Formats: sequence, structure tokens, C-alpha cells
Amino acid sequence: METRHLDSLVRFSDEKMQKIPLFDSAKYFCDLYCLKPGQDQRVHSHAESEKIYFVLRGNALFHIAGEERELRSGEAVLARPGEAHGVRNAAGEDLILLVFMTPQP
Amino acid sequence: METRHLDSLVRFSDEKMQKIPLFDSAKYFCDLYCLKPGQDQRVHSHAESEKIYFVLRGNALFHIAGEERELRSGEAVLARPGEAHGVRNAAGEDLILLVFMTPQP
Repeated sequence: METRHLDSLVRFSDEKMQKIPLFDSAKYFCDLYCLKPGQDQRVHSHAESEKIYFVLRGNALFHIAGEERELRSGEAVLARPGEAHGVRNAAGEDLILLVFMTPQP
Repeated sequence: METRHLDSLVRFSDEKMQKIPLFDSAKYFCDLYCLKPGQDQRVHSHAESEKIYFVLRGNALFHIAGEERELRSGEAVLARPGEAHGVRNAAGEDLILLVFMTPQP
């Protein structure tokens, strides 16, 4: 059975946000993103892919389609195809996101 | 911005497991599954779709491709295309799962 214990996979770096693959196929990926305070994923977009972010721990400042909003643990947000999206850890604690994207860009 | 606050969407029923849609498109869905003790999603399969379950709260007894395993909060599991899969709340507390599936069956 293909299982993952997320706590044992979490990994942070002083250099940049860490992307930790959980599951993927030709059609999607599911990753953990681990951001220390001040780290970010720069705003970018994908023509055909959708991305769901779920905040597992911490607070995340999302920028999606020109709007900014801070979400907390237990909240989720969607970036539709073509929508510029990015996320920053603007808080003082570590941030962990569960991210699902389909189709693969 | 398309955000969801999961705690405010959670809903249980004495009759059966509740599926609560969070996000979807023609290509995928992302749902919450809410199971009271004893409730289940019967074993079934999809020829082309993959399903990821992430345990948000409680303990879940998964049956995937003939194997059974109990996962706890913070663990995830994948059912590949064609793999028979189901889940039961065999514990004494409520169970909440975050579920991604792509493509739409």
C-alpha cells in the first residue's frame, strides 16, 4: 500500500522553500511545501493546470489572480488555470502546505 | 479568491458518510469525507482515476488492492487506477478525510 507519513517527510532549509514529493503520475502531483519564515514561492502561472493549497501548519500569505489573503491551518485555496499564484510565509513560524496540481504542467 | 475553511464545512450524518465538495473541475475533484464510527465507503474501483486520501482527524482503516491498513491523522494513501479501494471508520471517534481524485471518473 502506497502510504506516506507526512511528519516524517517534512524538511526545511535555510536556503529556500522545500518541495517534498508525496505522490505523482503523468496526470498530477501531490507535494508538501515547507517554508521557513520569509521564504516564498514566487508568483507564476500555468496555462492549463489547477493548483490546490491546503495549509497544514502555520499561516500562509497567498497571492492569487492579483488578490492577497492570509490563510491559516485548516484553510484551502484554489488557483485556476492561467491565474497567477504564489505564496509567502510572512509569519514568524514554519509553514507546511499540502499541494495538489493537475494536470502536470 | 476561492478559499475554503474546512472546519466550517465539516458535517456528519447518522445515516451515512458525508461527502462535502471543496473544489472541482472537469478534470478532478477535492472533497471532505466525514465518517462517524462504523461508517464506510464501500470498496470500489475506477479504471482510469487515481484517488489520494489524507487523514485530517481520527483513524481510518483503508482497504486498497486487497491490503488493509489503519492510518492516523497526518498520514496519506494513494489508490492507483484500477485498484479496489475503500475506507472504514473502525475507531470510536469521528473521522475526517481530505480526498483528491483525478481525472473525474
